[in-house]
Amino acid sequence: MNAIGVDVGGTKIAAGVVTPEGEVLSEARYPTAKTSEARLLSGIIRTITEVKDGFEVGGVCLAVPGSILAAENKVLDSPNLHVIEGIPLKDEIGESTGLPVTVENDANAAAWGEFRFGAGSEVEHLLFLTLGTGIGGGVVSHGVLLRGAQGAGGELGHTTIQATGPRCGCGNRGCLEALASGTAIGRCAREVASEKPDSALGRLAVKREVTGEDVTELAREGDELALSVLEEAGMWLGVGLAGFVNIFNPEVVAVGGGVAKAGDLILDTARREAHLRGRSPGRDLVEIKVATLGPESGVLGAAALARHASGEYVLDL
Amino acid sequence: MNAIGVDVGGTKIAAGVVTPEGEVLSEARYPTAKTSEARLLSGIIRTITEVKDGFEVGGVCLAVPGSILAAENKVLDSPNLHVIEGIPLKDEIGESTGLPVTVENDANAAAWGEFRFGAGSEVEHLLFLTLGTGIGGGVVSHGVLLRGAQGAGGELGHTTIQATGPRCGCGNRGCLEALASGTAIGRCAREVASEKPDSALGRLAVKREVTGEDVTELAREGDELALSVLEEAGMWLGVGLAGFVNIFNPEVVAVGGGVAKAGDLILDTARREAHLRGRSPGRDLVEIKVATLGPESGVLGAAALARHASGEYVLDL
Repeated sequence: MNAIGVDVGGTKIAAGVVTPEGEVLSEARYPTAKTSEARLLSGIIRTITEVKDGFEVGGVCLAVPGSILAAENKVLDSPNLHVIEGIPLKDEIGESTGLPVTVENDANAAAWGEFRFGAGSEVEHLLFLTLGTGIGGGVVSHGVLLRGAQGAGGELGHTTIQATGPRCGCGNRGCLEALASGTAIGRCAREVASEKPDSALGRLAVKREVTGEDVTELAREGDELALSVLEEAGMWLGVGLAGFVNIFNPEVVAVGGGVAKAGDLILDTARREAHLRGRSPGRDLVEIKVATLGPESGVLGAAALARHASGEYVLDL
Repeated sequence: MNAIGVDVGGTKIAAGVVTPEGEVLSEARYPTAKTSEARLLSGIIRTITEVKDGFEVGGVCLAVPGSILAAENKVLDSPNLHVIEGIPLKDEIGESTGLPVTVENDANAAAWGEFRFGAGSEVEHLLFLTLGTGIGGGVVSHGVLLRGAQGAGGELGHTTIQATGPRCGCGNRGCLEALASGTAIGRCAREVASEKPDSALGRLAVKREVTGEDVTELAREGDELALSVLEEAGMWLGVGLAGFVNIFNPEVVAVGGGVAKAGDLILDTARREAHLRGRSPGRDLVEIKVATLGPESGVLGAAALARHASGEYVLDL
């Protein structure tokens, strides 16, 4: 039966009615209203109601940013969407829509989307990383989505890879996120810009704050300094991936999010470093590539994780 | 049905006939003959034949050190038992014993032992670390042993936690193993001994090479310098555990191996560091404790992973 996947982001809410085969039958998208719980909820409900119109669906799954407590179907901590913290989402949205509602971390849902319909559709073991403002992670191991005991599992971005490294948004030091996210790339670019004011990055930095996107754009044009910034981030990404490859022995690592737009400009270094630091046979098997579903992975994955009123998965094989 | 677990170590081979409930009906133990493939094999076969005498068993699983290739039931790379590399173990031992034979990494087998019969028998999500010469790791997530695509999964000890850190036996830098194993503790102790020749460690170092065991023993007697060495190792262990807790959200982390004899002298620091660096809610849930089966975990876990000729697990629930 069809299901609705909802991707609740810090800036927009996207929803879709999705078939068991991953076909999107209808879509809707609205800016996220963050000023109150009530506005956020009514925005989510409106998006669901709009996509549902005329379709029979078995359930809804919300892909939400932050740490979740699966047993309570709520978000514990969401740095970019504080207003969602603690809301009893299942009850609030279930009552309004008349549908069974579940909640999943957004990167976990996206990992499941890539596993079912994207970069991992041919394999049993997939790691998914979304490199943007932060680094989200999701793991499918032996065909099972790694949720962990409380639903908080899969946080690959908060693995310490350089214990004495820079402070991370989570409070820890030297997380993968603190060294290879879009934010980390921007920070690194601003440092080199201030050291080399005559470079393209330096000239840009006079006008406005340099971002990770600027680095990718300049690197694509062949700018050496921007390339070296991406190379450093790619090196750190490879350090993290080597550890993950040793732990999970996956066939595929799929990289999504804004930073993935840099493609091989960042992934080539990451592949090299992961191979250098990883162990055989896993390092020789793994394919590190750009995720294939783009921003759709959250909606597709969430839909595939939705459940019937019976508690059974709607779309699962 | 009963099954035989065999723990093939660098110094000894231990085997047992084990019931589905984890009771050991018979045991045997011999030194590992490492001078040739033929001697190693005949040693393993003799141990199996001896424990099997008089019992009906459904299969054998060999817990072996090093990276395995599950599809070929062989060891790819074994730093402490090179002679085992490449031997077609399933065929060689299956033909001699008339039993179905499988092969599993020793730490993975021990993790399964702790999951089924030890520190993790009440939970769904268990991490197991064995801290000795190296650091072996095994993961049970959602009740499934994490083998990965090729059977090489679960290598927690080779996660980079300090990319610029000391060289590891695997060739990488800053692995957890390079910072918190018994070998790392010994190295750290020798460094402080040479700096403080009048300390107990310093006086010992004049007589012979200081080991991780010496550090634990002196720390138990209250020696401040030895305690500080354990504290440093515990800190690094905690750095690694924080990442694993974020990734797996496990209920239990069980620590075995020689270093675990230091108990809370090392684990208290590890718990504190893991809580400091880890994320809620996982860091608040996880219980970090000494594994309960001791050296038996390999035999018990391997037996529980043995299969019938049909390919079905012998002991699985």
